[in-house]
Amino acid sequence: MSGFVSFVSAGPGDPELLTLKAAARLREADVVLYDDLAAGAILDNAREGAKLVSVGKRAGRPSARQEHVSRLLVDYAATGAKVVRLKSGDAGMFGRLEEEIDALRGAGIGYEIIPGVTAASAAAAAAGIPLTRRHSARRLQFVTGANASGDLPDDLDWMALADPNAVTAVYMGKRTFPALAAHLMAQGMAPDTPALLAEAVGRVDQRFIRTTIEKLAAQLAQEDVTATAIILYGALAGHDS
Amino acid sequence: MSGFVSFVSAGPGDPELLTLKAAARLREADVVLYDDLAAGAILDNAREGAKLVSVGKRAGRPSARQEHVSRLLVDYAATGAKVVRLKSGDAGMFGRLEEEIDALRGAGIGYEIIPGVTAASAAAAAAGIPLTRRHSARRLQFVTGANASGDLPDDLDWMALADPNAVTAVYMGKRTFPALAAHLMAQGMAPDTPALLAEAVGRVDQRFIRTTIEKLAAQLAQEDVTATAIILYGALAGHDS
Repeated sequence: MSGFVSFVSAGPGDPELLTLKAAARLREADVVLYDDLAAGAILDNAREGAKLVSVGKRAGRPSARQEHVSRLLVDYAATGAKVVRLKSGDAGMFGRLEEEIDALRGAGIGYEIIPGVTAASAAAAAAGIPLTRRHSARRLQFVTGANASGDLPDDLDWMALADPNAVTAVYMGKRTFPALAAHLMAQGMAPDTPALLAEAVGRVDQRFIRTTIEKLAAQLAQEDVTATAIILYGALAGHDS
Repeated sequence: MSGFVSFVSAGPGDPELLTLKAAARLREADVVLYDDLAAGAILDNAREGAKLVSVGKRAGRPSARQEHVSRLLVDYAATGAKVVRLKSGDAGMFGRLEEEIDALRGAGIGYEIIPGVTAASAAAAAAGIPLTRRHSARRLQFVTGANASGDLPDDLDWMALADPNAVTAVYMGKRTFPALAAHLMAQGMAPDTPALLAEAVGRVDQRFIRTTIEKLAAQLAQEDVTATAIILYGALAGHDS
């Protein structure tokens, strides 16, 4: 008997932004592997007696941690269990999903992916603005501000990211935003391009900063970076109305 | 007494991909304004006796239809009703949300936005692949393939869209993809760049075509365009493994 793995999107953090399908998979799971970001009240959807396994705090290199998660997925599924791999935001975006899928394919284990609400959608919604604008923002782009070492990736397409007619959402980019903003302005992006930082969206300590790319970079260079945040910049709604 | 409008994301079509919060808002609504795309089983979440108003098939110019929707929102809310404005996918993406928000602000009516699962996430998930890749796709971008007249927007950033190291999702772009692909190849994008068309995701007539941008353009030039579809191209997972 062979198990099955459901990659379940936990959404941006608010337990009410889980999908009905995600909640159903959690209720049916024998084992739930979760990162710390996706923890808390969302795990309350699991049934009594389900095995809840945190995989977010393992020490060591990221690659060693990733191999450990992949091995756990395969090992639990091989017992015939219904396994849920809970991933924050939308499971398919910036979440190392591909490595885990490759491990399951290699072991001949079936899987499905349950899509979810990504953090940029939740951040704009909580700020009361649309992500795209009718006239000025026909392109929306998402990048990660941190590579495996936590630094700004050095191979990003700076010209595409400096387009004032796009809306750009930066994930995991609070610490590296001063460096990113320097690249953007070097490409000719106006220092007063609107920027919105959304921190701890949906939590009691939710915080928004509406500013410009230049001022946000200056402010973040002075701040300790603790809570996770999404940064939106470009042709943002709500800055001119 | 003043009403309140909840902009509720209906998700990609599968009723199980509604969020818990969206389902709750539908249950509590006095009035639900919906487009045809967001209809069907999702409306079953509304309570008995709620007023369900289709706003998707009004004839005339798109701008006239948009003014009509905005006026209905204001008029229903002014009666003190709890109004849900149901929008397909994620309400904040390519959905004319801004005009409706502007109308509510002008009338002094409160609103909230409930984010949802966007079609690109659902398409990739249904195809069993992540939207981003660890090594080759650090940028993910969404564009709409149709302007208000249904044509390919002529002011897109072709160079950003022709980046082989990004993953691009094209919304409402099935009919105009031959023209888009011509622009991409003129910018130097390889004709054999992987492409995936995902049609009617989550429905019984769901269909995937895994191909290249050149072949997809040739095939779509020959086809009647009926069902809605998402096109993904670029550094896609699952094409080389």
